[in-house]
Amino acid sequence: MSKGVLVVVSGFSGSGKGTIMRRLLEKYDNYGLSISATTRQPREGETHGKEYFFQTTEEFENMIRQGQLIEYAQYVGNYYGTPKAYVEEQRNLGKDVILEIEIQGAMKIKEQYPDTVLLFVTPPSAEELKRRLVGRGTETEDVIESRLVRAVQESEGMDLYDYLVINDDLETCVDEVHAIIQSEHDKASRNEEFIERIRKQLKVFVKGE
Amino acid sequence: MSKGVLVVVSGFSGSGKGTIMRRLLEKYDNYGLSISATTRQPREGETHGKEYFFQTTEEFENMIRQGQLIEYAQYVGNYYGTPKAYVEEQRNLGKDVILEIEIQGAMKIKEQYPDTVLLFVTPPSAEELKRRLVGRGTETEDVIESRLVRAVQESEGMDLYDYLVINDDLETCVDEVHAIIQSEHDKASRNEEFIERIRKQLKVFVKGE
Repeated sequence: MSKGVLVVVSGFSGSGKGTIMRRLLEKYDNYGLSISATTRQPREGETHGKEYFFQTTEEFENMIRQGQLIEYAQYVGNYYGTPKAYVEEQRNLGKDVILEIEIQGAMKIKEQYPDTVLLFVTPPSAEELKRRLVGRGTETEDVIESRLVRAVQESEGMDLYDYLVINDDLETCVDEVHAIIQSEHDKASRNEEFIERIRKQLKVFVKGE
Repeated sequence: MSKGVLVVVSGFSGSGKGTIMRRLLEKYDNYGLSISATTRQPREGETHGKEYFFQTTEEFENMIRQGQLIEYAQYVGNYYGTPKAYVEEQRNLGKDVILEIEIQGAMKIKEQYPDTVLLFVTPPSAEELKRRLVGRGTETEDVIESRLVRAVQESEGMDLYDYLVINDDLETCVDEVHAIIQSEHDKASRNEEFIERIRKQLKVFVKGE
């Protein structure tokens, strides 16, 4: 059994990346969940170790100092991050782990783990993206404008990703993402042990004849 | 529609790579055939443009000089090669083209076309490979020895391939190869036009607001 693949999914807001990830976990059993750590207060019904690892600011900053987070960010005064140990545990069990992270975070992860697969999800066209960003006509001009500006920024980094997935039909897209991740397991660079083993064994056979 | 992917399949003799390729063409309709050119005489029932493009040595050497072959080799006094124009035609129609070529040829193709996908097919273990190479007990010691020596040489180049496919169960393997090739279509590097288009259109929307 080979080690699980680490996948980072980014994409335009409105690309449906969250839905794709949930559907992947429902549909296939090779995916391991990643649970984030956060300093925000648990909401009604949230459990430590299920939705999040809830931590004090001191504990979280300690994890940062000790390099125990794959990535972290601050959002509305709270820390959010991905604990390294938990992800590695899942991968060592052969589970593929998918993280949903924006572009700067994605690039930092690729630096640390060059075998990370970076996946960018996009609607089939700019028109369709605009339609989804404009929403149901309840947003102000300013909100729409800022969403479009953000989409322009996000589009600048698309070519830094390994794969580009067009989300037109959800189920087709989910199967496509699954095929990409499974194909990654067949990369020669992920099978160095197998290659070494077969080389050694073949040499023994030749000498043994 | 994006351009078809050029795939080169290599592998140990006895890996079943020929069978995998035939099965892919039967099972899925996105593959374009590659027809080789050769200077050997047509056999009973063979037709020019179907099994091979049959050519005189002069014609073939002309194609070499004019750079019209992706690769070529000599075998038992005859030339065999892959015409560039035919492969490009298929790829421009969106067809993925698979060539079965040994390692040195595969590397030359990757140099010329860096987006070529190199795929190495292997039995699940050295023991199984030996079993297949030994055959039905009708081969001499010398023949078996030379097959094993060749397998050792082939194994040296395995890590130069993009993907390593283990042929344990034929149908599983065929579907795996198909998934790899289809996933290659989603590489960001193969979708630069799409990326450029969506970037430009989003910018127009922002200015237009």
